[in-house]
Amino acid sequence: MLAHWCDEVIAYDGSQLRAHWLLQRFDMAGDAIVGFRGPCSVRRDEIADLADIDGPGIAADDMVHFVWEAFEHPDLLLATHRQRLLAAQAAEVLRELAPAGTVTRTGDDLFVGDGKLSISIATVTPVSALIHFAVNSTPGGAPVAIATLAELSVDPARFGARVLQRVIDEQRSIRAARAKVRAKGEWS
Amino acid sequence: MLAHWCDEVIAYDGSQLRAHWLLQRFDMAGDAIVGFRGPCSVRRDEIADLADIDGPGIAADDMVHFVWEAFEHPDLLLATHRQRLLAAQAAEVLRELAPAGTVTRTGDDLFVGDGKLSISIATVTPVSALIHFAVNSTPGGAPVAIATLAELSVDPARFGARVLQRVIDEQRSIRAARAKVRAKGEWS
Amino acid sequence: MLAHWCDEVIAYDGSQLRAHWLLQRFDMAGDAIVGFRGPCSVRRDEIADLADIDGPGIAADDMVHFVWEAFEHPDLLLATHRQRLLAAQAAEVLRELAPAGTVTRTGDDLFVGDGKLSISIATVTPVSALIHFAVNSTPGGAPVAIATLAELSVDPARFGARVLQRVIDEQRSIRAARAKVRAKGEWS
Amino acid sequence: MLAHWCDEVIAYDGSQLRAHWLLQRFDMAGDAIVGFRGPCSVRRDEIADLADIDGPGIAADDMVHFVWEAFEHPDLLLATHRQRLLAAQAAEVLRELAPAGTVTRTGDDLFVGDGKLSISIATVTPVSALIHFAVNSTPGGAPVAIATLAELSVDPARFGARVLQRVIDEQRSIRAARAKVRAKGEWS
Amino acid sequence: MLAHWCDEVIAYDGSQLRAHWLLQRFDMAGDAIVGFRGPCSVRRDEIADLADIDGPGIAADDMVHFVWEAFEHPDLLLATHRQRLLAAQAAEVLRELAPAGTVTRTGDDLFVGDGKLSISIATVTPVSALIHFAVNSTPGGAPVAIATLAELSVDPARFGARVLQRVIDEQRSIRAARAKVRAKGEWS
Amino acid sequence: MLAHWCDEVIAYDGSQLRAHWLLQRFDMAGDAIVGFRGPCSVRRDEIADLADIDGPGIAADDMVHFVWEAFEHPDLLLATHRQRLLAAQAAEVLRELAPAGTVTRTGDDLFVGDGKLSISIATVTPVSALIHFAVNSTPGGAPVAIATLAELSVDPARFGARVLQRVIDEQRSIRAARAKVRAKGEWS
Repeated sequence: MLAHWCDEVIAYDGSQLRAHWLLQRFDMAGDAIVGFRGPCSVRRDEIADLADIDGPGIAADDMVHFVWEAFEHPDLLLATHRQRLLAAQAAEVLRELAPAGTVTRTGDDLFVGDGKLSISIATVTPVSALIHFAVNSTPGGAPVAIATLAELSVDPARFGARVLQRVIDEQRSIRAARAKVRAKGEWS
Repeated sequence: MLAHWCDEVIAYDGSQLRAHWLLQRFDMAGDAIVGFRGPCSVRRDEIADLADIDGPGIAADDMVHFVWEAFEHPDLLLATHRQRLLAAQAAEVLRELAPAGTVTRTGDDLFVGDGKLSISIATVTPVSALIHFAVNSTPGGAPVAIATLAELSVDPARFGARVLQRVIDEQRSIRAARAKVRAKGEWS
Repeated sequence: MLAHWCDEVIAYDGSQLRAHWLLQRFDMAGDAIVGFRGPCSVRRDEIADLADIDGPGIAADDMVHFVWEAFEHPDLLLATHRQRLLAAQAAEVLRELAPAGTVTRTGDDLFVGDGKLSISIATVTPVSALIHFAVNSTPGGAPVAIATLAELSVDPARFGARVLQRVIDEQRSIRAARAKVRAKGEWS
Repeated sequence: MLAHWCDEVIAYDGSQLRAHWLLQRFDMAGDAIVGFRGPCSVRRDEIADLADIDGPGIAADDMVHFVWEAFEHPDLLLATHRQRLLAAQAAEVLRELAPAGTVTRTGDDLFVGDGKLSISIATVTPVSALIHFAVNSTPGGAPVAIATLAELSVDPARFGARVLQRVIDEQRSIRAARAKVRAKGEWS
Repeated sequence: MLAHWCDEVIAYDGSQLRAHWLLQRFDMAGDAIVGFRGPCSVRRDEIADLADIDGPGIAADDMVHFVWEAFEHPDLLLATHRQRLLAAQAAEVLRELAPAGTVTRTGDDLFVGDGKLSISIATVTPVSALIHFAVNSTPGGAPVAIATLAELSVDPARFGARVLQRVIDEQRSIRAARAKVRAKGEWS
Repeated sequence: MLAHWCDEVIAYDGSQLRAHWLLQRFDMAGDAIVGFRGPCSVRRDEIADLADIDGPGIAADDMVHFVWEAFEHPDLLLATHRQRLLAAQAAEVLRELAPAGTVTRTGDDLFVGDGKLSISIATVTPVSALIHFAVNSTPGGAPVAIATLAELSVDPARFGARVLQRVIDEQRSIRAARAKVRAKGEWS
């Protein structure tokens, strides 16, 4: 699995959550995750979560985004578990970088107090599974009350790099663990 | 998915991590997780993790155990993700119950400082996937330096019930999320 | 799995056999089946069965419809087995409600004598499996010789509710049976 | 898929429900179903259904047995659906051969009035899925009240051949149907 | 699995690599492979391999084509393995028909010296897996240096029939082998 | 995926074709293939291919062995395709190293004229898929007429290293190809 932090600003509008965007934008073939910073304004026809279709919109002026495409095991149930684990990992990184902050996770969402810190979705394409996870970097542009990395005094690029590393490490460790376990039989 | 906190003490020796133990001990049929308190001493022939076979042994005098058997999607890769998420969930519960403590997660292990707080394994049987996750409750009996719920001033039964509820809630929310997402197409 | 009998008349044109129709029409998230009464006239571009594309058309003035969407195990081969079982279940219900009638099943079709009583299809979407099964309620509007619930003196709503209950019960019993069986080994 | 009616009497003790028994007994390689007549007395260690372990025993003096081994899609959930469909098929055959009889199906069991006509189990091996389904032929030897083909005046061999043909035909038709259906998209 | 050599010339433009083309063109339902001769000029919007999108184009005046659609196990990873095996099989047939030639395989491509003899792709549809494999028959029309059956003095129809037979035979033998193997346990 | 050529002689008796042998012998975790030289004498209880159980035995004094364990996609049908591709790859390597020889492949067997050059099996464990493929190095010890690398003047270690490299390269290229292909739709 490959990981990359992109220093260029990319305006996320949901169309990036498509099969092979990582291949065509970054020339990364196979399971990969990329992080970058940029504004967010998801076009209605690109919204994957039907619970959000008639909501207040998905937008913010400045976020740290992660886009993960998985080809090896493109199952939606697995992707949803990976998405939850990614949210938990991001919270763990924030506790390292901002020990005084109190980040909590509810499903795939992170909060600081009542402020929503993140947005996320897991979905599939005909050839892969996709995860988008993004954290507000500085205030502005969101249709709901948000929290930001700025108020936690966390540097966005440092946060991004740390999350990418944690995802790569954990996926490697999951694969190793899966290959070192022997099966069990029937209770009797 | 069913959950149950068992008030009776059960001595965990690894044989409980077998197909249908939950069915025969608790009459729970289908995907289920049970929590209970008891000593731990895993017999060598019941050790599933080959990395532990020649280790110092898996033992402690008093732990809070969780045994989870899944029939609906008995895939080992998925089970390993669920195991990691379970460790993250347990850490989140501990942060709620002991805000002053600093619990960290490394893969499927929890730590308080250098003290190992938990043990865990995910494996499969011919008909199901199995997860064991256990947290030290009070000191004693472990072959390595451990941390315990006692030093965090966390009540074992309260911790157990809270973790069970979180697992049930999160699995329900994962299933709902998976059923509310629409697929995406190809980047172009 | 959820079930619902909708008292409102819905004109079925095939577009209902789409991902998330049950979610958006009935706010049912996850595996679900809904029954309702209404005319049937499947638009050519909504026909899923290629064997029907150049046929006489799929239409009738008054049918009892069932639409089943499955997210948990969205496999087409499994869906086709569920479809056949659904046809068998419907025939069993009719034998209870109209013991004097002689309903026979050929694949996914039910007949009373030479009259075709039902239509059906199982297919997939990128996120789910779908089954449509419908039984003629009163005569009229069909391009082929049909049989109807009316000539069996079976009340449509009673039939619909009975079928829904049987599907729910059988799926629950299948899941329980699957979780209570131990594996077998090799002949020697 | 292959089918064979074996004219020789075979005493069924549960050990036949093992991987590759059909290969070694009948030289049939691949997905196959065999029917035969014989007494039934399942050894406790060969019982696959844990719900039966502490029951009255599984036995009868004279049954028509079917053993089905599937390698192509050896999934237990699918096998359980096939088992239910097999029970429904057997009931349909009985309605053809004994129109005056009133055979009812409850899950994987057939009844004539209160008399239990059949036994059944679906399970897996490390390489395949297995189904056993058997119908009482003549009375005697059962630990519960049973019904028999004899009281329905149905010839066992004729019944067996008819069921085998129906299974083969339906599996062929399921495969053809699965290959003739086009996918559907998202509701909008 | 069905196989058919079509004597009619068909101009391949990539649209043939679609779900159910074999069904509608040749009335073949289920897993099937068809061979035919014809020019090749793949329309850009029908190119499945993203590595070819900005390439010199996929074209030649006269090729032997194979189109394989698989419904039973429509997994893309398996299809890619089948594609590689198909390339190896074609090379083996050429060694039989033209022992003096030196055909080499690199991935899914065949070469004679530096001349590219073949093109190929494996992909999926929502209901199936698809493979296209084609070998240059006579020179002309290609945007790169090619080799041809003509320079190997191999008759196209004879080659086509031989490859089809080999695919059918090998798939049958793979299914038989898969059904005759018993599982192994754990090293200890 | 990892590959390793082991210079030490290992006597292959079939017990090496067990889950986690590569982990415990070579400390290789995850998908891996190892090559080594040694005598072969498969114990009857370790024979996985039931077609060989009553055969002349599986033995030779000096072979080049390959043992491949796959955890990522432990499906038996896929493993059987990989096994066939491995046989084809070995033949391709031999054509490079011994251009004058005429190695032919029939299923998973290689031949030089009438002499059987290789043996092979693909099977599964509860946690992985396994492939054994071995080629006779020097004559002696076999119960059937064999061909050897010696008569092709091929150095065993050079052959082994070349095959390992080809397997690694092809698996990498398969994964890349699978991740670069876009899906196709329905023919219309």
